[in-house]
Amino acid sequence: MLSFASDYTQGAHPRLLDALRRINGTPFPGYGTDGLSAAAADKIRAYFGLDQTAQVYFLSGGTQTNQVVISSLLRSYEGVVAAETGHVASHEAGAIEFSGHKVLPLPAHEGKLNADDLRALITRFYGDGNYEHMVFPGMVYLSYPTEYGTLYTADELRAIHAVCREYGIPLYIDGARLAYGLMSDACDLTPAQLARLCDVFYAGGTKCGALFGEALIFPHGGAPEHYITVIKQHGALLAKGFVLGAQFDALFTDGLYSELGRRGIETAKRLKQALYDKGYRFYLDTPTNQQFVILENDQMRALAEKVSFGFWEPYDETHTVVRFATGW
Amino acid sequence: MLSFASDYTQGAHPRLLDALRRINGTPFPGYGTDGLSAAAADKIRAYFGLDQTAQVYFLSGGTQTNQVVISSLLRSYEGVVAAETGHVASHEAGAIEFSGHKVLPLPAHEGKLNADDLRALITRFYGDGNYEHMVFPGMVYLSYPTEYGTLYTADELRAIHAVCREYGIPLYIDGARLAYGLMSDACDLTPAQLARLCDVFYAGGTKCGALFGEALIFPHGGAPEHYITVIKQHGALLAKGFVLGAQFDALFTDGLYSELGRRGIETAKRLKQALYDKGYRFYLDTPTNQQFVILENDQMRALAEKVSFGFWEPYDETHTVVRFATGW
Amino acid sequence: MLSFASDYTQGAHPRLLDALRRINGTPFPGYGTDGLSAAAADKIRAYFGLDQTAQVYFLSGGTQTNQVVISSLLRSYEGVVAAETGHVASHEAGAIEFSGHKVLPLPAHEGKLNADDLRALITRFYGDGNYEHMVFPGMVYLSYPTEYGTLYTADELRAIHAVCREYGIPLYIDGARLAYGLMSDACDLTPAQLARLCDVFYAGGTKCGALFGEALIFPHGGAPEHYITVIKQHGALLAKGFVLGAQFDALFTDGLYSELGRRGIETAKRLKQALYDKGYRFYLDTPTNQQFVILENDQMRALAEKVSFGFWEPYDETHTVVRFATGW
Amino acid sequence: MLSFASDYTQGAHPRLLDALRRINGTPFPGYGTDGLSAAAADKIRAYFGLDQTAQVYFLSGGTQTNQVVISSLLRSYEGVVAAETGHVASHEAGAIEFSGHKVLPLPAHEGKLNADDLRALITRFYGDGNYEHMVFPGMVYLSYPTEYGTLYTADELRAIHAVCREYGIPLYIDGARLAYGLMSDACDLTPAQLARLCDVFYAGGTKCGALFGEALIFPHGGAPEHYITVIKQHGALLAKGFVLGAQFDALFTDGLYSELGRRGIETAKRLKQALYDKGYRFYLDTPTNQQFVILENDQMRALAEKVSFGFWEPYDETHTVVRFATGW
Repeated sequence: MLSFASDYTQGAHPRLLDALRRINGTPFPGYGTDGLSAAAADKIRAYFGLDQTAQVYFLSGGTQTNQVVISSLLRSYEGVVAAETGHVASHEAGAIEFSGHKVLPLPAHEGKLNADDLRALITRFYGDGNYEHMVFPGMVYLSYPTEYGTLYTADELRAIHAVCREYGIPLYIDGARLAYGLMSDACDLTPAQLARLCDVFYAGGTKCGALFGEALIFPHGGAPEHYITVIKQHGALLAKGFVLGAQFDALFTDGLYSELGRRGIETAKRLKQALYDKGYRFYLDTPTNQQFVILENDQMRALAEKVSFGFWEPYDETHTVVRFATGW
Repeated sequence: MLSFASDYTQGAHPRLLDALRRINGTPFPGYGTDGLSAAAADKIRAYFGLDQTAQVYFLSGGTQTNQVVISSLLRSYEGVVAAETGHVASHEAGAIEFSGHKVLPLPAHEGKLNADDLRALITRFYGDGNYEHMVFPGMVYLSYPTEYGTLYTADELRAIHAVCREYGIPLYIDGARLAYGLMSDACDLTPAQLARLCDVFYAGGTKCGALFGEALIFPHGGAPEHYITVIKQHGALLAKGFVLGAQFDALFTDGLYSELGRRGIETAKRLKQALYDKGYRFYLDTPTNQQFVILENDQMRALAEKVSFGFWEPYDETHTVVRFATGW
Repeated sequence: MLSFASDYTQGAHPRLLDALRRINGTPFPGYGTDGLSAAAADKIRAYFGLDQTAQVYFLSGGTQTNQVVISSLLRSYEGVVAAETGHVASHEAGAIEFSGHKVLPLPAHEGKLNADDLRALITRFYGDGNYEHMVFPGMVYLSYPTEYGTLYTADELRAIHAVCREYGIPLYIDGARLAYGLMSDACDLTPAQLARLCDVFYAGGTKCGALFGEALIFPHGGAPEHYITVIKQHGALLAKGFVLGAQFDALFTDGLYSELGRRGIETAKRLKQALYDKGYRFYLDTPTNQQFVILENDQMRALAEKVSFGFWEPYDETHTVVRFATGW
Repeated sequence: MLSFASDYTQGAHPRLLDALRRINGTPFPGYGTDGLSAAAADKIRAYFGLDQTAQVYFLSGGTQTNQVVISSLLRSYEGVVAAETGHVASHEAGAIEFSGHKVLPLPAHEGKLNADDLRALITRFYGDGNYEHMVFPGMVYLSYPTEYGTLYTADELRAIHAVCREYGIPLYIDGARLAYGLMSDACDLTPAQLARLCDVFYAGGTKCGALFGEALIFPHGGAPEHYITVIKQHGALLAKGFVLGAQFDALFTDGLYSELGRRGIETAKRLKQALYDKGYRFYLDTPTNQQFVILENDQMRALAEKVSFGFWEPYDETHTVVRFATGW
């Protein structure tokens, strides 16, 4: 059966498994203080055009990374602004609220928030005579690509970043599927440009070729003090940090990260064409590795016998939106 | 200057101050274990037609009460459903999220949520294949009267209560202004009927005649074990609980609570007529002690020199919604 | 029956009730933004020899104040150092841990921690190669007087303060019974000296003449930004803040705070002499309003029929430590 | 250089890497709902003599597992009892307090708590007239082996378990190094006996042959409802749960878990003999894979040039306790 259920259904790219096998038997210091993690961090800095000011940490998963970043950067009375369809707003079982913070939702435009809505939210907040009794907008979260496979243009991102700058609010980019975003034909940003347009972001490993793991990057420094302790306290510090280091070292060697992104995009394009040829109706047009089509419910059940895909949401009483995701 | 800024701008009804003066000099045991608090609890039970199964606790303020109730009744992965204009959703500085829980917003219809929207939210939740990755609806919060001065009819409340019953979700009523709600001409519920239609509610003191304090009531019992400890842990257990006991004892003696509610309503009616006679345009029609009118901005500034009122929200570029609140 | 059960068994000093009666009927703005609270803050500044840099907030109770202060000043990975008998360590139902922070216990010497133990804890911490995996000492908490009625000498407090300075750790003084401490014959500190020797403290009202309420003071400024929001978020912001303002205004007018402290001390001295004359054995010698004696258990039961006091802790199988507390 | 720095300095046993390579390319459903995880759970049940009532979850690390288990089983006002040297008490950066709960320390006897101290703590608690103002003992945590390499005898564990039963307090065993404990000559418990003597435990992978991962086991069922959501909310749910499933499937196939434990123990015995032969002085006698010796500080520095080991704690001014840990 063909599998388009998700981009985290399979193990790791062989080069990552090879890297793990190669280091097996060699002792490494714990908690990410090893040389492999340091080497991986340097390669990541190079990929994103960053210098040693940039700080890199390796964590195990996306929700974990979001929880650590958001709860460690916000003051207690601040919330994080996100599109209402953003992962932190809808699909993390309340991990952000569990850590004490509100997600302040903005309307989603094909999965994206926009600068105008953001500015309106902030000015409405500070214009309210009672704002001291409300949750302060303390951070902006966006996904690149979004949960709907769409991409912010460079101009859109710049506009959002400018609003954040103006109000002194950090911008955080969730790059769970960053490789696919950066390799999309629709992407008009280099990795270095993206890194410059935010205060913190993560380059996903779990969905982009690793067994597991995300690289959290503060491109201009500024991670809270004793960040290792912060991570530990969230239960998010891996004892064998070198297992993450080895994987990210391999991912960012010889352009593998880009290559895997490109492969996911190429497969997605072929899939898109095939779906188009069969006359499927697209829910929205996406330039990355997730494709959303509207299926009549009987048709969906028939197709599910041959191909695995994800049920996204009901479209109407007789149709359903389904997702086809390609990987590397 | 006439003051309609809020219903918490003044001290306490003289009978409450008298009660405090009368007991001054008499020693009482601490933390609400005193006889006055017990007597007050009994009078509250009588007022709401409840027997000794009903549990009564006295707390200091509304946000505090909401935080204690909601965080103590929800499981860690549950959120509280509320109208998007509900106090817990918008005006408690994130106190609910601070205690680890998401507020799941429903559309507000003149400040009210409704049973259909509630049922839709719950069925959509359980219909989602990914609901284990989402925040469970674990409780319903509503205000009676609402933040917009409106009231649920008995039928509306019954419908909401029925949905809660069906899904085993507790219903919590925020009665910060309960006296005004119960004494409104539009109220078609007795106190006993209201108490039967929920699992927990509070009868407000701060806005209804007390210096401060709210009476938290579990009408059918069922407060979490060791609730005194739960309250203490939130920093919400007053050492001199008898100061709350004495006030609520007075409030629920000789029908004072109803009388104060009635007075607020009578004043509100006269105010409403006066506003109507002057040709003011109402933002919505409310049967309780809060009246909302739309003022042209220059007119608003002129009026503000003579009367104090609350700025509610911008209506459009040249008009503002303002609130006039009457008290007892 | 004579009552020495606690110093929070009675209402308020008549001048405070008078103040509340006097302002009854006058409207005040909410949430502590009123003129009475501002006047009270100024009188408190004067009492403690502070200028306008000093920030004053009014809260409802001691555990609440401790929770707000400690959780708002600590970073997420920091704990508060306290004597193992300190209120936050033992008698607040885990309110500090509930807000996410460990209490790091130090040995108690008649209820007091000391500078040597504190320095040892800090140097041991930073000397540990694994300290990034441990809770950082981020604040020191002490009570003046302590939970055992004892007082720090000026030298002891200076030594503790010096260690805090050296390591950049704020010192917080819990002054639930501050009036009694400052008026004790054993006190060798002026109010101004005490205020200079810490970063934040509170002057208790609940146990020193008020119906309820504590005055939280940042003597050199430095309260976290948007502290009103922080307080609100803890459910600790009283709507009718002027009820606290009026009480503290009265408490700090015409030397009442000192007078009440002095009265409690005078009564305690007479009580101490009476206990001594009757041959009671003291558990420790205390110069403030709490006296601890060791009673044979039968004797204790007999005495309890005539006088109310507090059971403190078992002394041995046949004796118990009991507490006699005097008030104003 | 010989490495005895820790038991988490190396990758995984080759059979686990082989398992990961073998499944590479095969799609699996996410979040631990895959067949490999189910198979691993069954093998774990068999190893510990459990039936299908037993619930098994796979998490990424030890601190994470402790945080999830403890915070999900305790009521808000309860704390976890642990030896003062227990991992949760001392080396998890306050992860337990971060989740809202106090660690109630008991004296450590060579790393172990005992039933008498536990009973004394509980009876002292309930004997205190103020216990409603204190943190309730709600759970007991112990490590098998302990952080000092020691083991509870079956009798010791039975006695602790009996106290827990008597007071209705769950007993949780941290088995980060369980394989070494169960394979020690000093172990007088079968895996099945251990599993019967507690309410929840975890069998460590990270330190016992896996790249990472811990198997959390509720031997008699009783995991809180919607435990997947609870795990997700802590940021602890791995998207590719099958990566953990594959490793634990291999670890519990053909007796590998026991074999790795046995190997660590055999190496430790040889190391112990070698240290003994060289005249080293042992800090305490341990029957598992961690050996603690007291080195004169100069000797320690010289040795550190040839062998890596862990600095444990200062012994006195001129000596240090160091740890040698062996792995599989």
